[in-house]
Amino acid sequence: MRILVVNPNTTASMTETMRQGAQRYARPGTEIVAVEPTWGPESIEGFFEGFLSAAAVLERLATYPDPVDAVVLAGYGEPGLQGALELMDAPVIDVTAASAHMACLVAHRFGVVTTLHRCIPQIEEALGSVGLLGRCAGIRASGLAVLEIEEDEERTMAAMIAEGRRAVEDDRAEAICLGCGGMSGLDKRMEAELGVPVIDGLVAAVKLAEGLVDYGLATSRALAFERPRPKAIPGWPRPVPGAKT
Amino acid sequence: MRILVVNPNTTASMTETMRQGAQRYARPGTEIVAVEPTWGPESIEGFFEGFLSAAAVLERLATYPDPVDAVVLAGYGEPGLQGALELMDAPVIDVTAASAHMACLVAHRFGVVTTLHRCIPQIEEALGSVGLLGRCAGIRASGLAVLEIEEDEERTMAAMIAEGRRAVEDDRAEAICLGCGGMSGLDKRMEAELGVPVIDGLVAAVKLAEGLVDYGLATSRALAFERPRPKAIPGWPRPVPGAKT
Amino acid sequence: MRILVVNPNTTASMTETMRQGAQRYARPGTEIVAVEPTWGPESIEGFFEGFLSAAAVLERLATYPDPVDAVVLAGYGEPGLQGALELMDAPVIDVTAASAHMACLVAHRFGVVTTLHRCIPQIEEALGSVGLLGRCAGIRASGLAVLEIEEDEERTMAAMIAEGRRAVEDDRAEAICLGCGGMSGLDKRMEAELGVPVIDGLVAAVKLAEGLVDYGLATSRALAFERPRPKAIPGWPRPVPGAKT
Amino acid sequence: MRILVVNPNTTASMTETMRQGAQRYARPGTEIVAVEPTWGPESIEGFFEGFLSAAAVLERLATYPDPVDAVVLAGYGEPGLQGALELMDAPVIDVTAASAHMACLVAHRFGVVTTLHRCIPQIEEALGSVGLLGRCAGIRASGLAVLEIEEDEERTMAAMIAEGRRAVEDDRAEAICLGCGGMSGLDKRMEAELGVPVIDGLVAAVKLAEGLVDYGLATSRALAFERPRPKAIPGWPRPVPGAKT
Amino acid sequence: MRILVVNPNTTASMTETMRQGAQRYARPGTEIVAVEPTWGPESIEGFFEGFLSAAAVLERLATYPDPVDAVVLAGYGEPGLQGALELMDAPVIDVTAASAHMACLVAHRFGVVTTLHRCIPQIEEALGSVGLLGRCAGIRASGLAVLEIEEDEERTMAAMIAEGRRAVEDDRAEAICLGCGGMSGLDKRMEAELGVPVIDGLVAAVKLAEGLVDYGLATSRALAFERPRPKAIPGWPRPVPGAKT
Amino acid sequence: MRILVVNPNTTASMTETMRQGAQRYARPGTEIVAVEPTWGPESIEGFFEGFLSAAAVLERLATYPDPVDAVVLAGYGEPGLQGALELMDAPVIDVTAASAHMACLVAHRFGVVTTLHRCIPQIEEALGSVGLLGRCAGIRASGLAVLEIEEDEERTMAAMIAEGRRAVEDDRAEAICLGCGGMSGLDKRMEAELGVPVIDGLVAAVKLAEGLVDYGLATSRALAFERPRPKAIPGWPRPVPGAKT
Repeated sequence: MRILVVNPNTTASMTETMRQGAQRYARPGTEIVAVEPTWGPESIEGFFEGFLSAAAVLERLATYPDPVDAVVLAGYGEPGLQGALELMDAPVIDVTAASAHMACLVAHRFGVVTTLHRCIPQIEEALGSVGLLGRCAGIRASGLAVLEIEEDEERTMAAMIAEGRRAVEDDRAEAICLGCGGMSGLDKRMEAELGVPVIDGLVAAVKLAEGLVDYGLATSRALAFERPRPKAIPGWPRPVPGAKT
Repeated sequence: MRILVVNPNTTASMTETMRQGAQRYARPGTEIVAVEPTWGPESIEGFFEGFLSAAAVLERLATYPDPVDAVVLAGYGEPGLQGALELMDAPVIDVTAASAHMACLVAHRFGVVTTLHRCIPQIEEALGSVGLLGRCAGIRASGLAVLEIEEDEERTMAAMIAEGRRAVEDDRAEAICLGCGGMSGLDKRMEAELGVPVIDGLVAAVKLAEGLVDYGLATSRALAFERPRPKAIPGWPRPVPGAKT
Repeated sequence: MRILVVNPNTTASMTETMRQGAQRYARPGTEIVAVEPTWGPESIEGFFEGFLSAAAVLERLATYPDPVDAVVLAGYGEPGLQGALELMDAPVIDVTAASAHMACLVAHRFGVVTTLHRCIPQIEEALGSVGLLGRCAGIRASGLAVLEIEEDEERTMAAMIAEGRRAVEDDRAEAICLGCGGMSGLDKRMEAELGVPVIDGLVAAVKLAEGLVDYGLATSRALAFERPRPKAIPGWPRPVPGAKT
Repeated sequence: MRILVVNPNTTASMTETMRQGAQRYARPGTEIVAVEPTWGPESIEGFFEGFLSAAAVLERLATYPDPVDAVVLAGYGEPGLQGALELMDAPVIDVTAASAHMACLVAHRFGVVTTLHRCIPQIEEALGSVGLLGRCAGIRASGLAVLEIEEDEERTMAAMIAEGRRAVEDDRAEAICLGCGGMSGLDKRMEAELGVPVIDGLVAAVKLAEGLVDYGLATSRALAFERPRPKAIPGWPRPVPGAKT
Repeated sequence: MRILVVNPNTTASMTETMRQGAQRYARPGTEIVAVEPTWGPESIEGFFEGFLSAAAVLERLATYPDPVDAVVLAGYGEPGLQGALELMDAPVIDVTAASAHMACLVAHRFGVVTTLHRCIPQIEEALGSVGLLGRCAGIRASGLAVLEIEEDEERTMAAMIAEGRRAVEDDRAEAICLGCGGMSGLDKRMEAELGVPVIDGLVAAVKLAEGLVDYGLATSRALAFERPRPKAIPGWPRPVPGAKT
Repeated sequence: MRILVVNPNTTASMTETMRQGAQRYARPGTEIVAVEPTWGPESIEGFFEGFLSAAAVLERLATYPDPVDAVVLAGYGEPGLQGALELMDAPVIDVTAASAHMACLVAHRFGVVTTLHRCIPQIEEALGSVGLLGRCAGIRASGLAVLEIEEDEERTMAAMIAEGRRAVEDDRAEAICLGCGGMSGLDKRMEAELGVPVIDGLVAAVKLAEGLVDYGLATSRALAFERPRPKAIPGWPRPVPGAKT
């Protein structure tokens, strides 16, 4: 099966990190394709950038030329999921919900470690929308901006472990979700240090996507995610010269 | 003072309806300016269109050339508010929150009457985000699409009154919020028929905006709505030939 | 328009503080009239005094001789609001709800700084009743009794700023509501020190009242605030020799 | 032990009904004394009358001359409880909380059948304050005003049973609480008709009071119910010629 | 009346502690009989042992030969209550619910002090099921295992008081519930030290049981606690040689 | 990988139904082994039977001789999950949580259709414990007892479709979870009739288990599901002559 991973930002190196992260625990027959939007912020650290990204991601999805079996939205705490659920024939899973659902299978309460303090309210909203905020022991910020995550692996690991430890000891989190798509791949080393499960939302989303596809479950069209009605959308999608397709 | 009302869709006749609705109870010194995005859906009836619109509205705001004292987002239940709060120097109020806050001043529980059933989950999410879903007695759909509202005033009024009556009698709503920016102006006639306060979110937002401006209250930059960090946003805002500015 | 501000306690100097506070940001045509009850506690610091005050305030309202366009109840966290909503023809707004509604327009989460620890549970109940407790980051006590607030302005300011800072830094409050009607007027100086919006419930209530009156919204009589039924109330209102009217 | 039952209204015949109701299942050594306030509404059917009554009840308690071991507040859904908890040395139990706590021991979800529709929001608030609204299957109105309850026993019983049946069948209530102190004594006949436990808040409160007194538990003075601070309360309590003491 | 207290573990000395604790404030005519299961863990410190114990307790109840007027389940935070409610003719009260209900009569918020950290999530679940978790200020662990409680009274008392003090000072608990049936009897000495009510769930349950029996209230059979349907239960109850009956 | 499915009741034919249901969408390399307890109720329809079953299931797990990669508990709404999480080295997933988590990926709100009305409160408790009750549109009963499900396939299908339709039309459920392990296999035919996703918890649990095992996620031992402490458990597990192992 083919799973399309969509990086919410336009930094291509991060798309590749996400692709590799998603591929790690994919089944042999699962192909991961990863793309980024053709326009939009180089990183998402707040509501404003999140809403720009949501539209750019939807545009990328609407114009993606190849068939896919499932879509994974790789932005942690970003808006747009429900729009993609309406738009796409294939199931759509975002990393926030995926990591939370999977964390609830192995822990009573989970914590999230993300990038900057300013991102915490968005993640709270997103988990509230999933319905699992009550099982979240707390959301903590490592202090690293999105684009700093890949700059210095040791600094990143040290910051993540330090904040993860506070989540376990102070907040009583029993598992940790990585609160940024760009953190993909940090899971197992953190797990070894912290002694609790650490969940990469990209892996969680891929495993859930494989399960949905195996089972043949499709997005319900009964109410919330009814297909968009036919209508004029002037100026959209926009023709971008040289856009990757 | 000058208040900028932003219609979330690209149907200009609806922008004018909103402008007039917003002006009705504005104070003498309040000037209402209304615009629509330069691209995006002709009407918003679901999450997908809502997320496209959110970005188009943010783009319109980011490129709006004149100073404004407050911004009113006229889409009921639409996403994007928090992005505008981050982006704009002036206070930003959306009609969903505005109508709910004002309804809570005159009623113990309020109901919402909107367009189509498919819009109900979005409005639920929006009121949950405001924090006032617990004071909402129910959300009902008139069955009219957004662009049908303006087609036949009597049909619209009949549908709104019928559903408003169910809200009062079956859901025990004590006030009604008009659940679509395009319904602006239906309030007083419905109120006369139903015998409970009927609240036009555009009016509510304008009155709240006037209050915030009088008091000199600005959006907090402490955490959730910190200004966007300086960063590259390739391909944004897009140059659209002939765009209104 | 004429707005009647009711101080919940019988300390007349505090009535004057409230009147001045309410007048500060009122529109030119808005006249603020302020009264206190003819009997009851000199200050309200707990449930017992709050319930005495509620009845005294209702008695004052029921016997107030002049027409008013709106009523503002100036006791933060005090009971009685719903009784006044039933009783009065004009809209009634209390400072607790007003400050919370307005804070939600400029901040994701707000904090409250009040007088004594013992008042915190009442304020929690009041915000729960409004429905906005979920957006309250925390309620803190300055340690000052109500009547101490006016004794030494610098001591009061220092205590309020110190506790406001804890609200911002420890509780992550993004705006601060002044948790006592007697704190009216401290807002802008605190705002300058703390760097987040500080909201005086009296101002908030006046601005909301102006908006309601402009819009012609009246309290719903549909269920919760139906007018009191005609009935005997022996011994009430009581004739008090020399009562101010 | 001596338990003081306080009727919230000034209708003496109802005080006697309450006294008899409270005495029914009291232990042999338990003496029930019942009083009503010296002023206030003849019946309580809404917030306005409830707040007048709360102060009148507190005045009655503050001036009650004899020692008591416990106090029972007999108004269902009425405000004032927390004030009495602050004021009195003896434990104070109100019938709303008492009936809800006891219902939770014998049923998963309970319903309430009260007097008029307009009283439902108050009872909701009261149960929310107790914390047990989540275990309430619904609150229903019999359509009888408080003073009609005693007028025609058969009509009252028929109305109560009809509405209790809807609570069981439509709301899935597994027990019924009598939602007015004046309904005391209807429990066992309704129970026989409906086949589910029917709980008279007065009996529930007396049994809880006996338990608290046996155990020697007193109201905590740690925070919410700290004793009132010494202060001037001009004009209170008022001297009423010929007041019962 | 005869009340059957069921120790959830198989340590007979603890059964005797519980019997004595339950008898302390029982009325003269109340006879306390205490038993433990015929099989199961020597102490309960977690979900696994809790579920074994629940079945062993139900087996003990199903085979108990003598008539009883009420049943008290003495395990704090243990599962099984609803099963006993279905099974038994007599009312069934567990110490978790009992202590929480009674604490709510004398305090706005209560804390719990239990044995080990690992037991906290179970108690949270139990209080959530009761519906009173919102009135719980926090659950704290003394660090003592169940079987250590009886080993050294002074060490136990010191640990309980230390943690109780943190509950009062840091969590703002206004009353303390003893979070283990084996702590029965520590209440009054802790109360003297901490200055807030301390509630032994066994006493609370006995007092509530006496009240239910006096009032003649039986478990509702309307929905959740309908009697078990007749059916085959192979291998149950098991014949245990020498089991106490 | 080998997944152990545990039927909570002792009816072996239902074990076989569950095994087949679980195998349907399992991956080629996934082996499903299904067992039932050696003692306990022939079907589970209430709390009492649920708690007996929980212990019998835990005993079956504790004595299961072969290595397994994951455990699936097949009882819908049954207690015991957290005990198995503590006990087992392998991940443990129950069908209630599994179906709810998976439903949330394809629908905004899901409904449950179960057997008898009396089972509804248990399922509510279970979903509340998962944290997803807020996304449940309603739980409905088909009226069929557990052992009737397999008696007449057409009658069962008709009852399930009728109630599923009410869930979609009246409760606005957008997906349906089969509310009994014995309903395994009804999903796709119901889906075709109802037009919304229908989720068999056994399939959902198997797919989630495969994902957890692929990812190498193990149950957190940090707090709630710490391994049981070493201790005496007299009389357990019991030696049953001829028990299947």
